[in-house]
Amino acid sequence: MFAVIMCGGSGTRFWPASRRQRPKQFLNITGRGPMVVETCNRLHPLVRDDEMILVLGAEHMKEAKDLFEDRDVHMLAEPVGRNTAPCIGLGAIYARHLGCTGAVAFLPADHYIGHPSRFLKDLRAAGEMADRGGIVTLGIVPIRPETGYGYIRKDGGQINAGEITAYRVSEFVEKPDLETARHYLMSGEYFWNGGIFVARPQTILKEIERYLPDLHKGLERLSAVLGSDRFESELKDVYGNLTGISFDYGIMEHTREDVVVVPSECGWSDVGSWASLYELRSPDADALKNVSDGETLLISCENSYVSGRSGRLVACLGLKNALIVDTPDALLVADMDRSQDIREIVDRLKASGKDSLL
Amino acid sequence: MFAVIMCGGSGTRFWPASRRQRPKQFLNITGRGPMVVETCNRLHPLVRDDEMILVLGAEHMKEAKDLFEDRDVHMLAEPVGRNTAPCIGLGAIYARHLGCTGAVAFLPADHYIGHPSRFLKDLRAAGEMADRGGIVTLGIVPIRPETGYGYIRKDGGQINAGEITAYRVSEFVEKPDLETARHYLMSGEYFWNGGIFVARPQTILKEIERYLPDLHKGLERLSAVLGSDRFESELKDVYGNLTGISFDYGIMEHTREDVVVVPSECGWSDVGSWASLYELRSPDADALKNVSDGETLLISCENSYVSGRSGRLVACLGLKNALIVDTPDALLVADMDRSQDIREIVDRLKASGKDSLL
Repeated sequence: MFAVIMCGGSGTRFWPASRRQRPKQFLNITGRGPMVVETCNRLHPLVRDDEMILVLGAEHMKEAKDLFEDRDVHMLAEPVGRNTAPCIGLGAIYARHLGCTGAVAFLPADHYIGHPSRFLKDLRAAGEMADRGGIVTLGIVPIRPETGYGYIRKDGGQINAGEITAYRVSEFVEKPDLETARHYLMSGEYFWNGGIFVARPQTILKEIERYLPDLHKGLERLSAVLGSDRFESELKDVYGNLTGISFDYGIMEHTREDVVVVPSECGWSDVGSWASLYELRSPDADALKNVSDGETLLISCENSYVSGRSGRLVACLGLKNALIVDTPDALLVADMDRSQDIREIVDRLKASGKDSLL
Repeated sequence: MFAVIMCGGSGTRFWPASRRQRPKQFLNITGRGPMVVETCNRLHPLVRDDEMILVLGAEHMKEAKDLFEDRDVHMLAEPVGRNTAPCIGLGAIYARHLGCTGAVAFLPADHYIGHPSRFLKDLRAAGEMADRGGIVTLGIVPIRPETGYGYIRKDGGQINAGEITAYRVSEFVEKPDLETARHYLMSGEYFWNGGIFVARPQTILKEIERYLPDLHKGLERLSAVLGSDRFESELKDVYGNLTGISFDYGIMEHTREDVVVVPSECGWSDVGSWASLYELRSPDADALKNVSDGETLLISCENSYVSGRSGRLVACLGLKNALIVDTPDALLVADMDRSQDIREIVDRLKASGKDSLL
């Protein structure tokens, strides 16, 4: 089985740990290694290194080569980010170029999986279904009325595949409000859309041809020069003229292709903020629910996350619900409930020309 | 007029800005320069540099020499700290040695004075009274029911000296509870004891002879060798055998000497904590009552003090009542209301052998 690992995204929400040059997918924020490396490693042994295709932003190529220096994963650099549909299309033609005719898993590089073995079992089942045609998606079984994710609704059509029960998809729906999210959770008919798809390259490309014909033309141009010297300049030219669009919005919300969802209770999280990372790491917390890394000293603190990444002592006294991230050139101190607003800081730094801190 | 500036004290309450080697009196925490320099400068022109005697901890001699390198202030190093009574006694014999027969002001190096010209006027009046005998103290007119200070109670006896009205002192009282402090404030009979005394050397030494005879014997031994090579070793020997005791407790609470208080509305503060420094600096605050130094970025923060002393950006988001002090090797993040408990951090560092951070 092949895998396309999508490594785009600027990850401003993890500032100051994440920067333009080292967005979230390259950080070791879970304590298990850089997220992209963890994402690749958990695919073993279902996917071999030489069956993995990393699609990266050109500016991150060096970082990725350093991380994977002695491993024979494939790497493709997007000259500019154009969202997931072009990325998936590029991955699909490259997998086809490598001789893949079976299922390819398309997955984001910066997600967390709490139960890797369940994840692998579900992905294997999805791959077996996708080998026979159609698009298979992993549906994350929801555990709270989350308003930050899109949802996948199953219809009644149950499909049995070995130990796994899958369902036909009725629709992909956008982020709901809280009341709707509660209804989704209670109904048992909805899954979180984790952005993980499995399909054969030709299935993907056929769908792109139908719903995003301009993208398809570009991909065909690229396909013709894959492996030649002309690929890089052609890639620049094609990407320069593409419109950014997500695979969900461009394809999945329209497709009449068989779409199947495999429910997965794999402990998935998109780790979308420091607050969600704190939640993930709460099993490591002390009696007062503090999580800390590095050299820290916490006195009378509760529900706080303290990340010391500068080698300095971080001493905290009487804090509640605090988020502290210390790096060599920038320090963040925030209320944990405001961790979604860190983008404001990055925007201000950008506006004031402090590029070295971005 | 001579002045003895008492520069002892470890200043742990201003950790991490203050350290063993650079306690509070050597820090520029008010933005006007190191406190000890400010203390000396505000005595001009009442006291000339060569009439100033700094009594320092031996470990701070180098720091002080660097600060006063081209000024002819006198410096005496105490081999160990023994509280204010020995310090004042040592200053008194040294002033006498320098030929002083009139009033000497004894004052702490690490206090803040908001209205230096009023202070100087009051100190001048105190000096004129002390020239005629007795001990004169500045009584800070209280502006809140403070429980952290000792108080001075006046009796009915009013003394007019030019523009200044002074009072005979009825008693020195220790830190009160809140109810008592409220009563003190309302009564108009009490002043804060700012630890500022004015008296001739012989008056001080006579009182020490009466109430602290062992200290007096030691001072006489020292007096005999002042200016000779033997002074330093004799000082070590004498201090080694002294008991630490404050001038308030050892002398002022017992003396039957004439004691006079000159009321002063000089904007005095002992700057005993980060919270009190924040209060002092609140006129510099922004619309949301934040005070900040260094490179900082505050978004949706209120009532907070952010001191960036490391050259790094300190970004704050959604904080209330926060205290942040960033230094090159240690960072403090605390609830402002806990600023009195910073000592706990220093104690923990001491206990765990982190001497480089003390």
